[in-house]
Amino acid sequence: MNTLLLEAHNGVLHITLNRPECRNAMSLEMVNELSAVLAQLDSQARAVVISGAGGHFCAGADVKDMARIGGTPQLQALNRAFGTLLQAVEALPQVVIVVLQGAVLGGGFGLACVSDIAIADHKAQFGLPETSLGLLPAQIAPFVVKRIGLTQARRLALTAARFDGIEAQRLGVVHFTEHDPQALAQRLDEVLGDVLRCAPGANARTKALLLASVEQPLGPLLDQAAQWFAEAVNGEEGIEGTQAFVHKRKPSWCK
Amino acid sequence: MNTLLLEAHNGVLHITLNRPECRNAMSLEMVNELSAVLAQLDSQARAVVISGAGGHFCAGADVKDMARIGGTPQLQALNRAFGTLLQAVEALPQVVIVVLQGAVLGGGFGLACVSDIAIADHKAQFGLPETSLGLLPAQIAPFVVKRIGLTQARRLALTAARFDGIEAQRLGVVHFTEHDPQALAQRLDEVLGDVLRCAPGANARTKALLLASVEQPLGPLLDQAAQWFAEAVNGEEGIEGTQAFVHKRKPSWCK
Amino acid sequence: MNTLLLEAHNGVLHITLNRPECRNAMSLEMVNELSAVLAQLDSQARAVVISGAGGHFCAGADVKDMARIGGTPQLQALNRAFGTLLQAVEALPQVVIVVLQGAVLGGGFGLACVSDIAIADHKAQFGLPETSLGLLPAQIAPFVVKRIGLTQARRLALTAARFDGIEAQRLGVVHFTEHDPQALAQRLDEVLGDVLRCAPGANARTKALLLASVEQPLGPLLDQAAQWFAEAVNGEEGIEGTQAFVHKRKPSWCK
Repeated sequence: MNTLLLEAHNGVLHITLNRPECRNAMSLEMVNELSAVLAQLDSQARAVVISGAGGHFCAGADVKDMARIGGTPQLQALNRAFGTLLQAVEALPQVVIVVLQGAVLGGGFGLACVSDIAIADHKAQFGLPETSLGLLPAQIAPFVVKRIGLTQARRLALTAARFDGIEAQRLGVVHFTEHDPQALAQRLDEVLGDVLRCAPGANARTKALLLASVEQPLGPLLDQAAQWFAEAVNGEEGIEGTQAFVHKRKPSWCK
Repeated sequence: MNTLLLEAHNGVLHITLNRPECRNAMSLEMVNELSAVLAQLDSQARAVVISGAGGHFCAGADVKDMARIGGTPQLQALNRAFGTLLQAVEALPQVVIVVLQGAVLGGGFGLACVSDIAIADHKAQFGLPETSLGLLPAQIAPFVVKRIGLTQARRLALTAARFDGIEAQRLGVVHFTEHDPQALAQRLDEVLGDVLRCAPGANARTKALLLASVEQPLGPLLDQAAQWFAEAVNGEEGIEGTQAFVHKRKPSWCK
Repeated sequence: MNTLLLEAHNGVLHITLNRPECRNAMSLEMVNELSAVLAQLDSQARAVVISGAGGHFCAGADVKDMARIGGTPQLQALNRAFGTLLQAVEALPQVVIVVLQGAVLGGGFGLACVSDIAIADHKAQFGLPETSLGLLPAQIAPFVVKRIGLTQARRLALTAARFDGIEAQRLGVVHFTEHDPQALAQRLDEVLGDVLRCAPGANARTKALLLASVEQPLGPLLDQAAQWFAEAVNGEEGIEGTQAFVHKRKPSWCK
């Protein structure tokens, strides 16, 4: 991997965006490497943590790629490939956690918007600068609307607004804001601890239900949910979870 | 009724979940009794208030039912029956108010999510513990997403989070938080007073419009709304409301 | 124009609802005049600012129109015409900003809900009084749900709630609250400055993407977005924006 650092530990894959010389701008190579990593995720992986090297998360698309590629059809494919990556991250059965410091701009903001849990430094700089450059937050806009709703998304996008981590929490972009790197690391540990207390199969199906809830009709979704519920009760995790609860011990998946 | 206390008063049906020995856990019998009560609601009823006996709202599904029932198809039907109850509560033409104290967990949380107005004690304990037991918040997940959005729902469900009434208000689960039983009772009185100032027929159709707004295309919905509006102006309530306004008196439906 | 004051300045059309004798109540004539103005917007216009004369934004529908019109089919058409106006305002390619003082009731509340950016006086009075008059917030309800979500909309509509600007910001109706007319004017200047830093064509397409995000399936929307992105990069605005960025100067659209 040229653009990523990977470290697997205790059922968690830590991915570090690693192009600190350009604030981890999302090059085509980085999109491809991230897509490849996620497509081959170990079935042991229960959570994925994405952060950035050098004090920044991701400053957005790499403008050098755009300048190099040039042609309209090629730019269209490049842009769509980033959207495909966002769709893949959103659909992961694993719990996806992002740790946000420094620049969280454009495509970096989009990536944050498909996480399950987002933790930000209070001074992180969020924003959608595209329209101030004559461009569009094209692949990002739908995910921002899904994340924080139309009312806030339209103000941010149509004014190319910049805002910090505190405001990001108020808007619902992130779940937690911390004031220094140590507090960020502690919060990440705490969140991972909470995630690993939950059964991996149950979490994967719950995540699928939550994502389906914003797109599918309620009745058939509740039918599907009931089937999964019954399978879970009589499945390995449900039996282990109930036994552990009765005997006041930790279930086997707790680490 | 074995599991419920009922009291009708001044156009309001007060339902108390009444299995305090198990924090009002939602047994199959309770699901059936609640469904029957709501299916036979008096046309005089303008609001329904649901609370719990013994200092708790509802601690979720009754695990004894699940252990007794056992078979996967039967568990599937049991689970789906709870979802059907949530759909019925959501679709009630009456204004549904919940008063939340103590445990508001799993299915109890789901029931709170289909209310029109939710009032919580600041120390009430909300949560979705299912995945930590190897199970799924199956019938509940879609209603939590509808209540507070995908962004917050995914964190809560995938970490089996516990949180109090203050946080529930911040997340948008509840509308009001109070600090003691007397303040809860006063807030309920105030909310009921506000509801009873509104015309019952107008409120029922407005509620139907609001619920349809998240599911139906805008154009036909506005057509339907315009028809209902015109019918209301020339209907009994509209005439009475206009007369009362002109003559600076209370309309007949005010109590 | 009998009911509106219009002033075009620096790419911005300022529309003042001008029936101060009845707190700018939305008469059929005002609906028609607003619709006509918006249908003929100058292609030079990049933003539209809507405010009200005499210290109020808009107190809702004009009850005199309703009394005069009378017949149910005619009332239905009158009501639907207001919904058509709201749809037209929402779909405008320009950035729509509302400045809210005094009464923001019923239809006035609905108009505020289709703005891109809303600025309110902290003492502005918001509310949906319809059901307390035996009527329905018919054309308004779907736009309130779209603005602040079902959970808050149902409480407001079913209790005919009144609330001020501070609460409106907490609920997500408005983006900014200010404490006096001078601060309102300064905020408007600042917001207009931000909007005018963004390229007009890019903003128009971004707004279309955001609105489509709540209604269209994700995949085809991302395809469309990618095409627009590529066109923008190689289009006039994208080239100017990139050049300006490289040469550290303001792009031509900045005023």
